[in-house]
Amino acid sequence: MSADDINYGEGDARERLLALAEQFYEQFETGDVPQLQVPTRTKSNIEYDEDSDVWVYGDRHSTRSAKTVSGAQKLLKATYTIDFLAQQLDEDRSSTLRELYYLSESWDLDEAQFNDQDESNQLVEDLEIVSGATREDFHMRPEESGATLMGPLLLREQTRRGEREIHCQEDVGEGGYQIPNNPDQIEFLECDADFVLAVETGGMRDRLVENGFDEEHNAMVVHLKGQPARATRRITKRLHDELDLPVTVFTDGDPWSYRIYGSVAYGSIKSAHLSEYLATPQARFIGVQPEDIVEYDLPTDPLSDSDINALESELEDPRFQTDYWEEQIELQLDIEKKSEQQALASHGLDFVTDTYLPERLEAMDIL
Amino acid sequence: MSADDINYGEGDARERLLALAEQFYEQFETGDVPQLQVPTRTKSNIEYDEDSDVWVYGDRHSTRSAKTVSGAQKLLKATYTIDFLAQQLDEDRSSTLRELYYLSESWDLDEAQFNDQDESNQLVEDLEIVSGATREDFHMRPEESGATLMGPLLLREQTRRGEREIHCQEDVGEGGYQIPNNPDQIEFLECDADFVLAVETGGMRDRLVENGFDEEHNAMVVHLKGQPARATRRITKRLHDELDLPVTVFTDGDPWSYRIYGSVAYGSIKSAHLSEYLATPQARFIGVQPEDIVEYDLPTDPLSDSDINALESELEDPRFQTDYWEEQIELQLDIEKKSEQQALASHGLDFVTDTYLPERLEAMDIL
Repeated sequence: MSADDINYGEGDARERLLALAEQFYEQFETGDVPQLQVPTRTKSNIEYDEDSDVWVYGDRHSTRSAKTVSGAQKLLKATYTIDFLAQQLDEDRSSTLRELYYLSESWDLDEAQFNDQDESNQLVEDLEIVSGATREDFHMRPEESGATLMGPLLLREQTRRGEREIHCQEDVGEGGYQIPNNPDQIEFLECDADFVLAVETGGMRDRLVENGFDEEHNAMVVHLKGQPARATRRITKRLHDELDLPVTVFTDGDPWSYRIYGSVAYGSIKSAHLSEYLATPQARFIGVQPEDIVEYDLPTDPLSDSDINALESELEDPRFQTDYWEEQIELQLDIEKKSEQQALASHGLDFVTDTYLPERLEAMDIL
Repeated sequence: MSADDINYGEGDARERLLALAEQFYEQFETGDVPQLQVPTRTKSNIEYDEDSDVWVYGDRHSTRSAKTVSGAQKLLKATYTIDFLAQQLDEDRSSTLRELYYLSESWDLDEAQFNDQDESNQLVEDLEIVSGATREDFHMRPEESGATLMGPLLLREQTRRGEREIHCQEDVGEGGYQIPNNPDQIEFLECDADFVLAVETGGMRDRLVENGFDEEHNAMVVHLKGQPARATRRITKRLHDELDLPVTVFTDGDPWSYRIYGSVAYGSIKSAHLSEYLATPQARFIGVQPEDIVEYDLPTDPLSDSDINALESELEDPRFQTDYWEEQIELQLDIEKKSEQQALASHGLDFVTDTYLPERLEAMDIL
């Protein structure tokens, strides 16, 4: 199976996994040393895919081969994990990445047990890449919980306890609708939203909800909760693709927040194999810009050394090589300041919903 | 107003705040230097209150007095904050602690502005203590979001958009019901739960929900999400006090998790003034015990130096001076190991719900 066959989120994950194990048997039969090829997952091996508009892995590969003892152990662990996942899918169960790590302690062969959770996490990512199925397809849950939605959307969630129809304004409390670990269990039934506003911090999310921003502007407010979980990125992408909603990402004005935007829009290096499943390349940045810090005289903090390093590394990052980002990042390195989205409160609690966001959204032709 | 008058969660927060400001005027009039007395908030100044069964502040006080420039500035900031909060309550608005910090930048007097957010956070805590109202009564929201509930409970939440009736199994997705920032907006309508199981990690919370533990045993599963937010502790206490549900706290088996249990059961040093509002002294520990590590041969990690220090400091902590805790902590220092709740998966994904928890709950006479 080559990377070109991959169509994430579709197909029978169980069969794809078993096909991998079968491949080892075939390699044995033809007298080849069993091996798996996995794309090298480093910044230098991601490239822009013109067709899909997201960053994907390049051509460089690492090989897990049974030629070495450590390589053979990796493949052994892979087969045990495939066996566990196939059984889990058979029984329609699910488990967390951490449970997988601990479960391996019960496996009969000591050599198949994981040494630490990094190892099992990495293996599951490898299996995603080579099988072309997602972790969600394997029924592996993350530790991180998904965030929340608030806005004019009626959805149906398929739960183990039956279907639930939930309107994300009328049927939820002020906390909003909790995104499940696998948002592909959700079907969108009716949507009156005009756009998505994905928000970094809980404080700002609550401000928008208190000020009724979702009601006044028909906004779907997605809480990112910092670096967004996969479930949050996935549902954001689905809101864009299936409901044709423009997506905006509202963050703090610092390099770490630009990365949050980047992971929504372009995918992350760690999960570049899933960019087509998780990334929303049309997402636009509506976070605090270095030029806003100057224009609105926002309260700031000085850039730390690690902030400066992160900004400089973003200038090198292919995902940020646009005129807009180069200008903003250069400006920020020049003024040596950063600012949080809640710093907009220095102009009053309503400034963000009455002035700042409407102006930015109008400039983007969204309002 | 003395600490004895304090009755948290009741009364008119706005009047209590204005009474504080009035007190400064009175002190001026009688020729006294304006001052505020606040209990010293250190471990050595918390003591066990026999009546309420929780740990509260002792007799030691710190004085914020206008005798010094820095003390005068503290009182100035307090009056500006009181002014802002009184206005916020007038308008039925709310704000986050971080917004308060940034808002102070718009105040006309530079000396009244906060230097950092620690300062504004601390002031709000001081105002809680001396006014006898809670931060929630001031309509101050935290950054941290509350966690989730899943279980046989029908509740009514008073939102800014009207009332919402929500059943925490039938009307929610697999993510559960999102606890709002101020759970006193919730009214319990119908409850079929027999007990509360408050769970530290998301992975374990999801395991219990997947295995239908809440349905099979009529459990209210409260997700603590690590060190629990105030909203989570408050609703846990209300589930105990108003619905008469036994509360159990299910955590990892390490000193940091014992503190999570401690903050649910006895309150925290930082918020000992709110113990009667937040703490559930009847809560029982059902987390991984050092004796479980031995008995079930759980996968472990070695104790780090900071783990050992934390355990030793717990031995000194009045909240942990019971035979049970001394025995468990001594055992843990002896075996030098810790274990996570998800480590129970080493006996299979159903061990925790089929064996471990039922056995513990039976031993506690809850099942």
